[in-house]
Amino acid sequence: MRNDSEIKIFPGSASVEFTKRICGYLNISEGESTVLKFSDGNTYVKIGEKVRGKDIYIVQTIGLDPNNEFMELLFWVDAFRRSVANSITVIMPYFGYAKADKKDEPRVSIRARVCADCLETAGVDRVVTMDLHSAQIQGFFKKPVDHLYAANLFCDYIRGMNITDYVIVSPDEGFAKNARYYSNKLNVPLVIGSKQRTSHNEKAEIMGLMGYVEGKHAIIVDDFTISCGTLTEIANVVKNRGALSVHAFVSHALLSKKGVAALRESPIEKLVATDTVHNPNIGGCEKVTVLSVADMFAKAIRIIHNKESLHELFD
Amino acid sequence: MRNDSEIKIFPGSASVEFTKRICGYLNISEGESTVLKFSDGNTYVKIGEKVRGKDIYIVQTIGLDPNNEFMELLFWVDAFRRSVANSITVIMPYFGYAKADKKDEPRVSIRARVCADCLETAGVDRVVTMDLHSAQIQGFFKKPVDHLYAANLFCDYIRGMNITDYVIVSPDEGFAKNARYYSNKLNVPLVIGSKQRTSHNEKAEIMGLMGYVEGKHAIIVDDFTISCGTLTEIANVVKNRGALSVHAFVSHALLSKKGVAALRESPIEKLVATDTVHNPNIGGCEKVTVLSVADMFAKAIRIIHNKESLHELFD
Amino acid sequence: MRNDSEIKIFPGSASVEFTKRICGYLNISEGESTVLKFSDGNTYVKIGEKVRGKDIYIVQTIGLDPNNEFMELLFWVDAFRRSVANSITVIMPYFGYAKADKKDEPRVSIRARVCADCLETAGVDRVVTMDLHSAQIQGFFKKPVDHLYAANLFCDYIRGMNITDYVIVSPDEGFAKNARYYSNKLNVPLVIGSKQRTSHNEKAEIMGLMGYVEGKHAIIVDDFTISCGTLTEIANVVKNRGALSVHAFVSHALLSKKGVAALRESPIEKLVATDTVHNPNIGGCEKVTVLSVADMFAKAIRIIHNKESLHELFD
Amino acid sequence: MRNDSEIKIFPGSASVEFTKRICGYLNISEGESTVLKFSDGNTYVKIGEKVRGKDIYIVQTIGLDPNNEFMELLFWVDAFRRSVANSITVIMPYFGYAKADKKDEPRVSIRARVCADCLETAGVDRVVTMDLHSAQIQGFFKKPVDHLYAANLFCDYIRGMNITDYVIVSPDEGFAKNARYYSNKLNVPLVIGSKQRTSHNEKAEIMGLMGYVEGKHAIIVDDFTISCGTLTEIANVVKNRGALSVHAFVSHALLSKKGVAALRESPIEKLVATDTVHNPNIGGCEKVTVLSVADMFAKAIRIIHNKESLHELFD
Amino acid sequence: MRNDSEIKIFPGSASVEFTKRICGYLNISEGESTVLKFSDGNTYVKIGEKVRGKDIYIVQTIGLDPNNEFMELLFWVDAFRRSVANSITVIMPYFGYAKADKKDEPRVSIRARVCADCLETAGVDRVVTMDLHSAQIQGFFKKPVDHLYAANLFCDYIRGMNITDYVIVSPDEGFAKNARYYSNKLNVPLVIGSKQRTSHNEKAEIMGLMGYVEGKHAIIVDDFTISCGTLTEIANVVKNRGALSVHAFVSHALLSKKGVAALRESPIEKLVATDTVHNPNIGGCEKVTVLSVADMFAKAIRIIHNKESLHELFD
Amino acid sequence: MRNDSEIKIFPGSASVEFTKRICGYLNISEGESTVLKFSDGNTYVKIGEKVRGKDIYIVQTIGLDPNNEFMELLFWVDAFRRSVANSITVIMPYFGYAKADKKDEPRVSIRARVCADCLETAGVDRVVTMDLHSAQIQGFFKKPVDHLYAANLFCDYIRGMNITDYVIVSPDEGFAKNARYYSNKLNVPLVIGSKQRTSHNEKAEIMGLMGYVEGKHAIIVDDFTISCGTLTEIANVVKNRGALSVHAFVSHALLSKKGVAALRESPIEKLVATDTVHNPNIGGCEKVTVLSVADMFAKAIRIIHNKESLHELFD
Repeated sequence: MRNDSEIKIFPGSASVEFTKRICGYLNISEGESTVLKFSDGNTYVKIGEKVRGKDIYIVQTIGLDPNNEFMELLFWVDAFRRSVANSITVIMPYFGYAKADKKDEPRVSIRARVCADCLETAGVDRVVTMDLHSAQIQGFFKKPVDHLYAANLFCDYIRGMNITDYVIVSPDEGFAKNARYYSNKLNVPLVIGSKQRTSHNEKAEIMGLMGYVEGKHAIIVDDFTISCGTLTEIANVVKNRGALSVHAFVSHALLSKKGVAALRESPIEKLVATDTVHNPNIGGCEKVTVLSVADMFAKAIRIIHNKESLHELFD
Repeated sequence: MRNDSEIKIFPGSASVEFTKRICGYLNISEGESTVLKFSDGNTYVKIGEKVRGKDIYIVQTIGLDPNNEFMELLFWVDAFRRSVANSITVIMPYFGYAKADKKDEPRVSIRARVCADCLETAGVDRVVTMDLHSAQIQGFFKKPVDHLYAANLFCDYIRGMNITDYVIVSPDEGFAKNARYYSNKLNVPLVIGSKQRTSHNEKAEIMGLMGYVEGKHAIIVDDFTISCGTLTEIANVVKNRGALSVHAFVSHALLSKKGVAALRESPIEKLVATDTVHNPNIGGCEKVTVLSVADMFAKAIRIIHNKESLHELFD
Repeated sequence: MRNDSEIKIFPGSASVEFTKRICGYLNISEGESTVLKFSDGNTYVKIGEKVRGKDIYIVQTIGLDPNNEFMELLFWVDAFRRSVANSITVIMPYFGYAKADKKDEPRVSIRARVCADCLETAGVDRVVTMDLHSAQIQGFFKKPVDHLYAANLFCDYIRGMNITDYVIVSPDEGFAKNARYYSNKLNVPLVIGSKQRTSHNEKAEIMGLMGYVEGKHAIIVDDFTISCGTLTEIANVVKNRGALSVHAFVSHALLSKKGVAALRESPIEKLVATDTVHNPNIGGCEKVTVLSVADMFAKAIRIIHNKESLHELFD
Repeated sequence: MRNDSEIKIFPGSASVEFTKRICGYLNISEGESTVLKFSDGNTYVKIGEKVRGKDIYIVQTIGLDPNNEFMELLFWVDAFRRSVANSITVIMPYFGYAKADKKDEPRVSIRARVCADCLETAGVDRVVTMDLHSAQIQGFFKKPVDHLYAANLFCDYIRGMNITDYVIVSPDEGFAKNARYYSNKLNVPLVIGSKQRTSHNEKAEIMGLMGYVEGKHAIIVDDFTISCGTLTEIANVVKNRGALSVHAFVSHALLSKKGVAALRESPIEKLVATDTVHNPNIGGCEKVTVLSVADMFAKAIRIIHNKESLHELFD
Repeated sequence: MRNDSEIKIFPGSASVEFTKRICGYLNISEGESTVLKFSDGNTYVKIGEKVRGKDIYIVQTIGLDPNNEFMELLFWVDAFRRSVANSITVIMPYFGYAKADKKDEPRVSIRARVCADCLETAGVDRVVTMDLHSAQIQGFFKKPVDHLYAANLFCDYIRGMNITDYVIVSPDEGFAKNARYYSNKLNVPLVIGSKQRTSHNEKAEIMGLMGYVEGKHAIIVDDFTISCGTLTEIANVVKNRGALSVHAFVSHALLSKKGVAALRESPIEKLVATDTVHNPNIGGCEKVTVLSVADMFAKAIRIIHNKESLHELFD
Repeated sequence: MRNDSEIKIFPGSASVEFTKRICGYLNISEGESTVLKFSDGNTYVKIGEKVRGKDIYIVQTIGLDPNNEFMELLFWVDAFRRSVANSITVIMPYFGYAKADKKDEPRVSIRARVCADCLETAGVDRVVTMDLHSAQIQGFFKKPVDHLYAANLFCDYIRGMNITDYVIVSPDEGFAKNARYYSNKLNVPLVIGSKQRTSHNEKAEIMGLMGYVEGKHAIIVDDFTISCGTLTEIANVVKNRGALSVHAFVSHALLSKKGVAALRESPIEKLVATDTVHNPNIGGCEKVTVLSVADMFAKAIRIIHNKESLHELFD
């Protein structure tokens, strides 16, 4: 890398392991730091070494404890700014509030924009994240956002599964455009699930399906899952319609304990996810496979630091 | 309305007719103003009456000449602010740059955010618009955005067509979620078109279709059309697959002359649109029906001015 | 109050009871609202009634779960702003991050300023709070901060204790100036505790005392306590030096379970605090007396809404 | 130049030729880029090569199609910022809205300030421009503005004309101070034209003249002309008062077709201008001489990039 | 006036008398306030009465002690904002730093913009001022600036002088456009002075004159004078060229003691100025006549408070 | 130092001597500049050499003429920013308005925050200052503030006085925490003075003392003194209670002439201060000893420029 002495990567408390993987890949040592949670709940952060004039990368996912994680991140950014870092790049493998990106009902907050504004107010210079809930969220930031994708990694994995005659399944219309990317990349058909109203009852909705799965392996793709609810529902439908097997791929593994239990009960054979969220719930679950994207983030950091083009990552 | 003397509605040069309709509905006179385009291309605006302390609504669509229309709008907002209006609400029936809401390729601008920032820098207090290209664009603004929808108007119209056995058709996956709203509201099936790769050629794409149209009337819905290209393509496919008839509904009628010609050649029987964009190209085209949403905007202004809740509009 | 229909008071989830007390005092009904914490930890807020054009007071203490409470508060402010409230006043009975008001060691964040900036970015118009850790924190905000004090309430209570010959004790030099206010107001001597170095050992510190407590009742005052550590230490010292009894008064009761246990073991007879923090830990502790400041906040809201002067509260 | 690899000059669509001249002078290749105007009028920009960490100079005059040109410029700045350029300098040879620099009548916009604010909101770091309509416009920007002048170039040209006994003519009082600069620099008398009221009619104005032109060559100077109206009027007056010949020098050649026709009919022998505005109207007009200031801008860029002092340009 | 109870006018320490005149005209009592200058030079301000919810007008000229006056003004604005005034209008009869409105030499500050930014940062909502050094300075402010003129008052006075056969004299080209306004309004000729280079000596400059003064009364107009230097010089020239008498009119009387002495020695019979600057130096000078513009400012305040149009003042 | 050619240190007019000392220590030449105060009181600044791309340190104390000094400083920052300096660090040895850091009475300004905001609006990147009145003032700035302390210098001096058996005296509770630092550092007792109410008279206050001074040397410490009032009062008390001698140490010497006279009359043998404020009043006073902190500031500048850690200064 261009001048190693100018770069420093620090772990936030939600991404300790992930940061180790990044630093391991880049073969540089992590920044020293301290995070404390006092008994009144206050979060305290302290940078443990000189950062004046350095290019700082602070790694913090906004995952399963998003408010504590986000406030800590704001304090990190402020601490680095007040310590006169040359630049502050937030590496946010998962941006948990990205889901809250619109006013889909009256009198709610657009929480993703609130978070974006707070990060910029605190003094961030750049954000690197992965598989935002919607691409528009880049526009919630004034500062540059580098947006990485797990799709290539997942496509490679799917190709390596050595199944033939399979389809990509989007659980609903909202993810259909993203699922189409997989379908085109892998050159297989797309199937779309959707909640549909039954004809004589305005309230009841059943899960419908557009496209054929009979005699095929079904590969469900989505950006995240918490309770495994939608995944299970769509998995049941494709099974009922004759799918040979069901696999699911989600970028961000937010599975709750209940979600892991639901997964175990479901016809899904395997849930493949990335390590953007450190999730102890999935620890012992044999149905879950975690692929690391730490290497991809490490490459992104190297590219950014070397002032190369990030788009090389995806060519 | 609450205290008529405090409100004033001004037309921007792109929405002269639309503003007349609004003011007619509300039975108030338009604000006096002058817009000039000098021979060096400079736009000049001048407010023609006292506005100090008034609540101003400036109506300007960003339509077929978006850059000229948008710059004029910025100058209006500045002029009202410097003339010490009490509040400035931009009524933007169509926000032409909303389409540019993400970085879907490297090194482009998120133009919708640029426009949002400029409007806020100029001093707007509130924006009212209709059928944004994506709901997330509300989050591009810090200021409140009231978002209206043509869907109810279109659904009423569709119900009035007295056709039975019809389907809603989304031209692609990107609009599928919106089309699902129509499908559920009207309680009819949804069909989704999509560009699909043919199996042995990486480049070639053909328009595919998920769902059945045979023996049914097809109602295509989309947010806007310029060249009628996608609409024609999907219309041809549904016709080929046995649809009885094809109608298309688009919120914003941006049809170019070429687009009107394409529409005439297409199997689409009728294109129904709203009057958010003043479009002389569609003037003589018998295939185009324009429904006015000026009343809906007029009601929205009254609700806002009376400090009532806008969501009453949609219940 | 001036025009009741224009005011609306909403509870944040950390101040549900406190808001009830305020609304009871003012005899107005609380605003309807919903707060949810999803199983991925995301906080969701929704205003349950019309707020356009109203003066909003949102009550949320930043207490024992400060990060969750603060993020919720930011989302409330954003929701009210996007719903076009006329003004948004945050009633923050306790501002937990006020303690983090300076860089007392290298490379830390000034977290109170981060919080102030985020609140202003979200769109707050005014803040009302009580007994900030330092008066300077008003200056962390650009927006007006109304600062209330529990001191008068505490002085009244002390006078009502009917003890004679007592002293005010500040646990350290940092609180000495505030303690002097009590001492002067009640016209009794001030005693100051402090950690002092023993003469021959650079590391060891013992709690010293400036002033006399022998044969007197000791009234310790401080702004908050978590573990009761400092309070216990100073209480032991004053007891050892011959104080007749020890009482403690703290504005904000952040006592942890361990703190309650420590209190029980200590020579402190009674800990008097206010209800700015809802603290279940102190529920069954007979040594703790909670005085409500909800009335004082209610009066402040009425004064603000009536555009009177808040300083009347303290004359 | 200091490290050529760090600099990159991009052409906006209004300054394609001008950028070529600059790059030719500096002997560096232009940046690759794409500008499209879609059939709905939307402008699209795309940077065609890596810019992360580079010092960017984007050249765009705000000339004969100012709104389209200005919006494109905003999008360029946003695109460069989001692509993490190290710095973004706008080279704006002519700033067309600089004319709109004050409220000379009630309830108008100060459009030059609107433009300045929008450029800064979009993220510009520096602006380089020439012969602003008033020097105060530098103060409309918070960011540094480097202001170049054509006066030295014009003075050299005038000296090269080998005429003796000539005067400098300002067409009105507003330009008199600038014209005085020429007069002093060239050491010849100044003559000032002005609209003057005739004594008994409040409305009628005739062009008057302060100073003598009889038997002298007249050199009219002004910052721009569109219709040649003022120039023609003053030229007629000086001719009537016995001037031997009339030449005109304007910094920015905005001549409309009508303006070119008027020039042809006028007693002006030659109109000398610069190439800040690409103006096809003047293409075939033998009366117009265009002097290039691309070299001056190229030198300015080199000076800026080498962190030298721009004022060397004018010594 | 509309609801007197909502308005309050406060004097800054540089405009105590001027504020009295305004309040006298409007028949309302001044706001109570305290200004102290401590012995370490610190300025202290304190509002002496309730201002929450009121429309505040703070009157402070930036005159003969501009830095002390300006800092005091910033503190006033902050104090009113933190005391939750409804609006804060700065009445700045003279804006002393308006002279510093451009970079007319390298590496200087545009001090007028610095002042504008600081006022807006402190929280001003509106500014009312008179005869700015250049009209462009309105554009240095984002907030609305109401700009008053002494010209009508001066023209009335000149008409009342009952002299015939007089000319308006601008001391230089820079003020020529403003002087033309007088000339046209009064329907008399304009004469322009200017420093001109003598033909064979590059350094030497003499005061020249464009236009005839012989046998006429000369009325010199300018925006301000400090040392009377330019006024004396031009007065001498017009006298030498046969003027019958010389009068001077300046908006802002900044005369230093030396300036008053120079005036006494000069051929100027009378210097007419306004009371925007409280200037003790001119106290005993019989050559100076001061016309009050306090009434004009009072009318402006009434118009603003009644939400009428300020332009009525000048029709 | 790292690349001397990139750094440049400029003196403000209030710190001419102090800047010389800094530059002497660092062995670099001062930047060339001009400051003028015109006869109308306007301050004018002009940078006398090339600064484009350089790291600028502008040294200006806000001392005995704070408003003039502060406005000059704002203009310097603006001039450097508009001249495209790479970074602008304000070296403000004393920040005179830091005393005004809270609303300790109703309806006043928080003047320290006003100053902080103005400096940031003008464009400062960093501030270096010493012994702020309260540590919280760092939080008034968004930009990094490096805070130096005179305590170590004073402790060294005290140790060098070769007195034994002495105590540290804080003149009041407000400075007690700082005085405790001295006490612990020097390992001697702390004594605290305070105004105390006499028992039967609510108004009367006498200076009381907590701790013993009999037979000991008293070392009073405080952050600044103007009139020597508090110092004299506490000195009298400690003398009356049997102190052997009295010395006083203050960081910032703001002594007025009256203050110097009071000092002469007082029992204080020696007042030790630093040279942060250039104070001609103390010139001939044999009781005052001035220790220079210019070396400490010079070291801080070197550390900052070399991107080292400032905290090394204090280890």
